[in-house]
Amino acid sequence: MITFKEAFQKVLDHPLDLGVEAVSLMGSLNRVLAEDIYADRDFPPFDRATKDGIAIQFSDFVNNGQSFVVEGVAAAGEVQQVLKDKSNCLEVMTGAVVPTNCDTVVMYEHITIVDSKVTINEKVKKGQNIHYQGSDEKAGALLLSKGKKITPAEIGIMATVGKATVKVMGNPKICTIATGNELVEVKDIPKPYQIRKSNMLTIEAALLNSKIEASSLHLLDEKEIIKKELKKALTENDVLLLSGGVSKGKFDFIPEVMESLGVQKVFHRVLQRPGKPFWFGIHPKLKTVIFSFPGNPVSTFANYHLYFLPWLQTSWGLPLENSYIKLSAAIKLTQPLTRFIQVNTESKDGIFCATPVVENGSGDLTSLAKADGFINLEPRDEIYVVGEVVPFVKTR
Amino acid sequence: MITFKEAFQKVLDHPLDLGVEAVSLMGSLNRVLAEDIYADRDFPPFDRATKDGIAIQFSDFVNNGQSFVVEGVAAAGEVQQVLKDKSNCLEVMTGAVVPTNCDTVVMYEHITIVDSKVTINEKVKKGQNIHYQGSDEKAGALLLSKGKKITPAEIGIMATVGKATVKVMGNPKICTIATGNELVEVKDIPKPYQIRKSNMLTIEAALLNSKIEASSLHLLDEKEIIKKELKKALTENDVLLLSGGVSKGKFDFIPEVMESLGVQKVFHRVLQRPGKPFWFGIHPKLKTVIFSFPGNPVSTFANYHLYFLPWLQTSWGLPLENSYIKLSAAIKLTQPLTRFIQVNTESKDGIFCATPVVENGSGDLTSLAKADGFINLEPRDEIYVVGEVVPFVKTR
Repeated sequence: MITFKEAFQKVLDHPLDLGVEAVSLMGSLNRVLAEDIYADRDFPPFDRATKDGIAIQFSDFVNNGQSFVVEGVAAAGEVQQVLKDKSNCLEVMTGAVVPTNCDTVVMYEHITIVDSKVTINEKVKKGQNIHYQGSDEKAGALLLSKGKKITPAEIGIMATVGKATVKVMGNPKICTIATGNELVEVKDIPKPYQIRKSNMLTIEAALLNSKIEASSLHLLDEKEIIKKELKKALTENDVLLLSGGVSKGKFDFIPEVMESLGVQKVFHRVLQRPGKPFWFGIHPKLKTVIFSFPGNPVSTFANYHLYFLPWLQTSWGLPLENSYIKLSAAIKLTQPLTRFIQVNTESKDGIFCATPVVENGSGDLTSLAKADGFINLEPRDEIYVVGEVVPFVKTR
Repeated sequence: MITFKEAFQKVLDHPLDLGVEAVSLMGSLNRVLAEDIYADRDFPPFDRATKDGIAIQFSDFVNNGQSFVVEGVAAAGEVQQVLKDKSNCLEVMTGAVVPTNCDTVVMYEHITIVDSKVTINEKVKKGQNIHYQGSDEKAGALLLSKGKKITPAEIGIMATVGKATVKVMGNPKICTIATGNELVEVKDIPKPYQIRKSNMLTIEAALLNSKIEASSLHLLDEKEIIKKELKKALTENDVLLLSGGVSKGKFDFIPEVMESLGVQKVFHRVLQRPGKPFWFGIHPKLKTVIFSFPGNPVSTFANYHLYFLPWLQTSWGLPLENSYIKLSAAIKLTQPLTRFIQVNTESKDGIFCATPVVENGSGDLTSLAKADGFINLEPRDEIYVVGEVVPFVKTR
């Protein structure tokens, strides 16, 4: 058996090149940007009025006092207007191009207009209420870098520079595979010795949160069927995520069948709880990567977050983000195993704290709904004390 | 003008009853549960072996020593077997029903099998390696409560209890409305005085993150067209989200047209920055709620997160969750306005800190990509000091 740290490194040592995909702007939401995004023109693209009011030439204001005749109106979405007589003014609307010969905007709240004659009632600062061309960004400036997660803010920026189509990191083709004769469909009424499939639905939902739509398969505990189906799945997918079939049972055929199909075992069994029987392999020719998780719901869920998601980040060429949290309860580990412990989190006065969830072992599916994530504790003799900062992996 | 706190309360005072919708299990991901979910049977539903090995009767083990003859195999997914001779054993697989007359499971790692005769090599504790029926939850137990956000963990739990269809809180029918002659489509090349639409695409993306697919509209600055289109939109939607057209400009027809269509203004203009010209109204007969945000990108984005999302939570009957963060820079406010300041966040040693983003005013769209959210500071004379805990609204 190997340690968690060794297993983790071995998983990261086998990334896939997932390529790049072009998707619609809105389809890029929550994907990872695979190109740099530049300003196609200055931001803003012209000297833009930021208030509704009048545009004037300030020098004239200083020289000639506080009254102006209105020459006309400059609206948003119109060509730039010209102030003909610099001692006059133009009414100007928010978003409009500041007219030629004007350098200052005075808002309606600060003026009085009587018969097309404006009186200014407040102090005026030269250049006020103008959002200058290129003052946010110059044309050609790098706005978003490759590798950035695309959130609504990035959608807005890409819309502004005309990215109707966006290059994003490719998604792996994934098949989730449930194993075991005891499993029936969600819509079915299980017999007393059966249970409904849930593990791989949990994983499919988690994949959807990474914008990956996986296919799915259910394998019964019959070696020949498993072999035939896995052979097909290995060819058709980049990644197989399995649950169950990797323990020491008489019908745990997965490792044996995998190896007979040319899959190279990278490791089997890790010094960790939950998820000790985790089996990881690759098919060197087909370039398929196989994560075979133990069948217990908490084990599968933990291994997905602790191994698969970092593997996905690495395959996308992204740095891993480590997150930490303060313990609000002391924890004593009694065995030489890395422990993934389900916790509730709480942010109080800006401090992020974790409290272990009361659960009933790795088969306790209902405990998942009580937790916000796992803390990841390396084995050690000394107690983990209250207030200690430990690694944390978020699951909701 | 009213204060932010007053405006916020007025928005919350106008929730909509959004009803309940039945969706497929997987379609319920990231929605809000609208029914309580109960255990349909015990969790686990039978005494379940948690290890591969042999099942024995412990009393017999104590009495008769350490050797057992194997009577047969109990596999997962099969009816419960019976140990006929209590001094024998049955091989048992993980996930199988523990056979009748057995109360203890010994894993393969702790035994030797030679010619169907088992020798146990380790200490055995009565009842070990059994996940007892109902030990996680009893049939009828409340597993998930109405109002819970559905994450992958909840999908797994609902799968297990057979919820192929799930009741979730209904979504409002929303139309996002961009206004202004200066706006062109993302795919278009803007003329020098035009800009591409981006504000409402940002909002549509944000709505998708709440699993709401909005329709969209672009209104030019012509009063009769605005009137005709808004009349239709008010009838066909629960919520209108507008951007632009609510300032003091000559072509800011929205408030006037809204009122002519029977919309009741709840407030217009709030003592806040950004987003001061925010207009909020309701149509008492049609039950439409109208959020008319100022046209600047940062204003729209801030108002969406600070007003619309809490309104949505309230309409779904959920409590508002307040989040707080520590300031890592001092901030001095100079005007009697509530300030929404874009910040970067960092979690260091379990402490969650905010640093203001350098930006160029509410028109600076590119600043949105640099920020993780807004801090929300009430006006006051005293400086906001480093380490002070202030309200925070996440935007990514």
